[in-house]
Amino acid sequence: MVSAPRWLAALTTALGLPENKGQIMYQLASVDANGNPHVRTVGHRGFVEPEGSPNLPLLMSATDIRTPKVAQLLANSTVEIVWWLSGSMEQFRLSGVVRLVPPPEAQLPSPITKVSSLAIDKLDAQGFEWEKKRVEAYDGQPPFLRAGFARPPPGNIIESYDIGKSWPGAVPKFADAQNEEEKHAYERGLHSFALMYIEPVEVDWIQLKERPNRRTKFIRKGEDWAEYIAVP
Amino acid sequence: MVSAPRWLAALTTALGLPENKGQIMYQLASVDANGNPHVRTVGHRGFVEPEGSPNLPLLMSATDIRTPKVAQLLANSTVEIVWWLSGSMEQFRLSGVVRLVPPPEAQLPSPITKVSSLAIDKLDAQGFEWEKKRVEAYDGQPPFLRAGFARPPPGNIIESYDIGKSWPGAVPKFADAQNEEEKHAYERGLHSFALMYIEPVEVDWIQLKERPNRRTKFIRKGEDWAEYIAVP
Repeated sequence: MVSAPRWLAALTTALGLPENKGQIMYQLASVDANGNPHVRTVGHRGFVEPEGSPNLPLLMSATDIRTPKVAQLLANSTVEIVWWLSGSMEQFRLSGVVRLVPPPEAQLPSPITKVSSLAIDKLDAQGFEWEKKRVEAYDGQPPFLRAGFARPPPGNIIESYDIGKSWPGAVPKFADAQNEEEKHAYERGLHSFALMYIEPVEVDWIQLKERPNRRTKFIRKGEDWAEYIAVP
Repeated sequence: MVSAPRWLAALTTALGLPENKGQIMYQLASVDANGNPHVRTVGHRGFVEPEGSPNLPLLMSATDIRTPKVAQLLANSTVEIVWWLSGSMEQFRLSGVVRLVPPPEAQLPSPITKVSSLAIDKLDAQGFEWEKKRVEAYDGQPPFLRAGFARPPPGNIIESYDIGKSWPGAVPKFADAQNEEEKHAYERGLHSFALMYIEPVEVDWIQLKERPNRRTKFIRKGEDWAEYIAVP
């Protein structure tokens, strides 16, 4: 009988602490074509696991296919996340690979090569409905977040901040759209919205409120997680 | 007459806001010898600038020479920082190079090649006392932080969390040491303590509390900073 890794229990516990309320942002590091590092804050959108495999959790987040990180992830799917929970003074570092789920019709900066890894392969084998989940995630977010995907390409140079006033500040779900403009904005956003499934294979957990400080490393070996205590 | 870049004023303003109180941690991304990304939380230890060059600010932070990031930075000095200020919902991403200042006697994982860049070179030319600043920074930190550098090598596997109880929880300054053990701990830490001077050449500032959201990019060109408004 497999069970969830202890790092996931620790992370879930930390996220539930009142002193960490609202800390659902983490930093995702990737590498560009020149071999240089990049890192940005992304919002956590939940955990996923293959059916019957709580030992193989993934983290889900979203991105816009027009951002530079998409080209980076297509070229090198290895990423590292750092999640600093300032309330409880805990740091989780998770390294692994990311499966990008772009809109099926998207024109990507480079051809998509399907990332293969234990949990991702299991989801594939189980007929996980990647595209359906993508649309659900797009629909499930608040209108102001959805609006972020209906703007011109992120990073494009504009003349003034005021140009942003012509973009929708909120984009309702398709069913709630009041006019053609809102329907178009909904569709436009859906064509840019991608999910990222991050499959960690190594986790480094540091607890700085503990005296003495604690550090625990988890390394996936086959389907199991080996656990080590380390010097912080 | 040169002046400080507007991103530094924005960052300093953000750091001074009551809603961002205590948010002096940022995430530093680097790349390992295999070309994979790594990222961890580090503590901000202040800004530095060459004399007469407020336009060329650097960020200072500290590390232990025995951590994997030191080998990474020696092999590839290009880094990116992300500083997420949750109170004001602002993100600053700074990319640039890092000059590592290890203890002069340190045995490093690879030979140190002096990073050359505009601000770092000016500091060199002005006779900036890198080693003196390193000792000052080591002395200037609270005893519990200094203790972190007097432990066995970070990341080493240990038998149990309790082994940490044998390490000093606080290491006073040399002048305040009460006995030989504290003096040794002070010296041990000083032999592991390194400074990192990060010289940004590009900065990406996102303001998510503004409606519409704002994004501003700053790119250093020669000694000047070009500024662009961009789609968030």
